[in-house]
Amino acid sequence: MKTNLTKVRVTYADTDAMGVTYHANYPKWFEIGRTELFRDMGVIYAQMSSHGYHLPLIRLYCHYLHPALYDQIVTVETQIDYLKRASMKFNSTIWDENMKIKLVEGYTVHACTDNEGNIVKIPEVIVKALHENFKKED
Amino acid sequence: MKTNLTKVRVTYADTDAMGVTYHANYPKWFEIGRTELFRDMGVIYAQMSSHGYHLPLIRLYCHYLHPALYDQIVTVETQIDYLKRASMKFNSTIWDENMKIKLVEGYTVHACTDNEGNIVKIPEVIVKALHENFKKED
Amino acid sequence: MKTNLTKVRVTYADTDAMGVTYHANYPKWFEIGRTELFRDMGVIYAQMSSHGYHLPLIRLYCHYLHPALYDQIVTVETQIDYLKRASMKFNSTIWDENMKIKLVEGYTVHACTDNEGNIVKIPEVIVKALHENFKKED
Amino acid sequence: MKTNLTKVRVTYADTDAMGVTYHANYPKWFEIGRTELFRDMGVIYAQMSSHGYHLPLIRLYCHYLHPALYDQIVTVETQIDYLKRASMKFNSTIWDENMKIKLVEGYTVHACTDNEGNIVKIPEVIVKALHENFKKED
Repeated sequence: MKTNLTKVRVTYADTDAMGVTYHANYPKWFEIGRTELFRDMGVIYAQMSSHGYHLPLIRLYCHYLHPALYDQIVTVETQIDYLKRASMKFNSTIWDENMKIKLVEGYTVHACTDNEGNIVKIPEVIVKALHENFKKED
Repeated sequence: MKTNLTKVRVTYADTDAMGVTYHANYPKWFEIGRTELFRDMGVIYAQMSSHGYHLPLIRLYCHYLHPALYDQIVTVETQIDYLKRASMKFNSTIWDENMKIKLVEGYTVHACTDNEGNIVKIPEVIVKALHENFKKED
Repeated sequence: MKTNLTKVRVTYADTDAMGVTYHANYPKWFEIGRTELFRDMGVIYAQMSSHGYHLPLIRLYCHYLHPALYDQIVTVETQIDYLKRASMKFNSTIWDENMKIKLVEGYTVHACTDNEGNIVKIPEVIVKALHENFKKED
Repeated sequence: MKTNLTKVRVTYADTDAMGVTYHANYPKWFEIGRTELFRDMGVIYAQMSSHGYHLPLIRLYCHYLHPALYDQIVTVETQIDYLKRASMKFNSTIWDENMKIKLVEGYTVHACTDNEGNIVKIPEVIVKALHENFKKED
């Protein structure tokens, strides 16, 4: 299974008055991880999007285990859980830099839509790129 | 069951390049709803927090049904699902202004912690205020 | 001079680890104020935008005097400073709820652009609506 | 003059419905640049902050020249403009990755405060570290 690991440093902008990362900012790191996993597989989400195919979220789940602290580097781990005709699921985990402590684990489920928001089949070129990478990593 | 309904208007800041509200901004409206539900029940979260009791998120779940559009007024509906010794769960729904169309439904689970992040019993004064309101609405 | 006053409550999402509102969140309240000032004058920015006219920022200035605290209600005061052929300037002030303490003062300068980002004349219907309101208030 | 160059990739979270980076997100990149410039000079802002010295913003200025697009890598250029007894100013520029096109230029002015928000002298150890670096680069 293809895995992407991307590092992000926590900024002041990410924190809240509790002194740690605000809970709604972790999903932004999930987004960074998904984009980089796609890039690893040769799929540029910006191009897919400019061709009229989008992957809006249907579901988001986060389980918060330990807070990410200001100025800490976190490692975002991203994997594709499943790939269906018109939807897909990613598993995302936020770790400390050295992946010793799991901070947040979660997932996102996405539909494939066109520019008008209609659900459509994930384009063949994307499916192919993702499948090839699934295989490569087996 | 006590329910809070709070209205929020979608700003440009809330949107993304897909032209609708960015998925990680809906949980911020959940937060607004929780705070207002507490206020309805006589609990000011800011005071609870300054007394050293916090309710950080343990879990967040969002199911996205329809996007909230720029400048649209949305109604945030918030209810307490359960109240335990050291944790509680809120159910949150984002509707269009007139509550005809459900946009996002989800929940958040919170632990009660002290200033050091240790899990502690929810203070009696809070439990009492919340229970009285549960009863009032039965 | 037409003035809009809009109230906003500070959320946890707005704060940072210093315990007060993060500096880059005040401009989001400036945005809310501009939109409501326009609405007062009969101009719905969302409609202007869907007709292909936009007012992206060219300049932003903020002078931070006192921090806005979590759960505080702030009053956003907005006025049009000038209206030119293809640009306009707003003056924005963030006050405490009762407008006794000035928290942040600043301004934003905007160009009028079409969908392709070319600078264009502000549409006559907008200019008229704004001018009528300038006059009404003299 | 010591200069820090840091690269940041634009995320969906950074964009708005106009399809480009929301204006209030550029100052977050200024923050990243300032933190990295300090790190280059041996000053960890997180440590300074945990020792009770903070550098809250007094003024922010942004001049927006060209928008940063989704998935684009931008280069954040940061320099210290001046260093006074209890305040300092940074000049920040957002460029495209190769620093051919200037996207945003601006500055931030900061006061030095203690944990209670009182303005205090910038700690000697910080001043020394910054001055040594000014000199090194001359």
